[in-house]
Amino acid sequence: MREVFQQELREVQDRLVEIAGLVAESIDKATRAFNESDVALAEEVIADDHGIDQAALALDELAITILARQQPVARDLRIVVSALRISASLERMGDMSTHIAQLARYRFPDKVVPKTLRPTFAEMGRLDVEIAKKLTELLTTEDVELAEQIRNEDDEIDALHLQVFDKVLGETWKGEAVDTVDATLASRYHERFADHAVSIAKKVQYLATGDWAPEAP
Amino acid sequence: MREVFQQELREVQDRLVEIAGLVAESIDKATRAFNESDVALAEEVIADDHGIDQAALALDELAITILARQQPVARDLRIVVSALRISASLERMGDMSTHIAQLARYRFPDKVVPKTLRPTFAEMGRLDVEIAKKLTELLTTEDVELAEQIRNEDDEIDALHLQVFDKVLGETWKGEAVDTVDATLASRYHERFADHAVSIAKKVQYLATGDWAPEAP
Repeated sequence: MREVFQQELREVQDRLVEIAGLVAESIDKATRAFNESDVALAEEVIADDHGIDQAALALDELAITILARQQPVARDLRIVVSALRISASLERMGDMSTHIAQLARYRFPDKVVPKTLRPTFAEMGRLDVEIAKKLTELLTTEDVELAEQIRNEDDEIDALHLQVFDKVLGETWKGEAVDTVDATLASRYHERFADHAVSIAKKVQYLATGDWAPEAP
Repeated sequence: MREVFQQELREVQDRLVEIAGLVAESIDKATRAFNESDVALAEEVIADDHGIDQAALALDELAITILARQQPVARDLRIVVSALRISASLERMGDMSTHIAQLARYRFPDKVVPKTLRPTFAEMGRLDVEIAKKLTELLTTEDVELAEQIRNEDDEIDALHLQVFDKVLGETWKGEAVDTVDATLASRYHERFADHAVSIAKKVQYLATGDWAPEAP
């Protein structure tokens, strides 16, 4: 029974890694579509999101089946419950990629953001892609050092998110309302993408170190 | 054993209802703070969010304890897993209230949105409050008719969300960049609040009717 359970847990982990890989691909394409106004790439991201949703749903069903069949307790139980939560966060990360791709598609053939903001978004996109890759690696290796790096890169993204608002609300901003709306939404999506990664990284870190939040009374 | 389990499930349900009640109070105060520029009320919402987070965390721990002790299967297992997901959505709804309250606080003593948009936001706020109340009732009674109503009200909010963009991107828009940013974010928060409610309503409906998504192979 124990051996079957370990095998099933490996299957859960493999699937999480696989979904994280799809998310990494998705944000890579979405940020390229966004920064280069590549509408074909944007369409691809939007079409592929269904695959991420389905993979997350299938993983949830596997986790529930494991709970029913193996009735894990203690740390084993927490691993399966965490998998359910990680899957939900990965699914939302895919949604953020899709939202970024949709902005690129709406404004095509125009670029989504005006020139002055492009370096900021290029950097946010680069960090999101980096974070997604590290997340896939973290889920594969459980090397908690990566969790720390993801948190640091999220801090950098938060700083860039504030920088977007500083520019948009600054005196030199010449953008139209449509540019302001797009910059606001795009910045929020880039920032939320990284937030979900941090939340996943925390769960992996807890599992790896056993450092759980205290039990409720 | 079965009786203890039923009692524990009732405890889970009671706590979900309690958290939904806190969220309903939170969005009621947040939208009033937002529409009336009431900074004291905004502070209250922001301070009270911690209570929602803690209640959701305590509920998660209870659900995990039930999984470990009672080892439920089939429908019972799905109820407990759903409770974990509903708790996560309620926690995010509290975050949306907080974001709306924060916008009111940042702009105080100014109003967050210009005159032309105020009726739209008043209506979005009214619908969010209505949805939160119905959600509390749905969690209490499991009356699936309420789930339908919540979905319909969410459709109304989605239409208002689009209306905000129509106005902001329209030729008559005289707002500054700061107004455009605030309207964009506020509209997104109001809309996301309702989305989470719909996602919870679907879960309750599935549980009440047994109409689950097909199992993964």
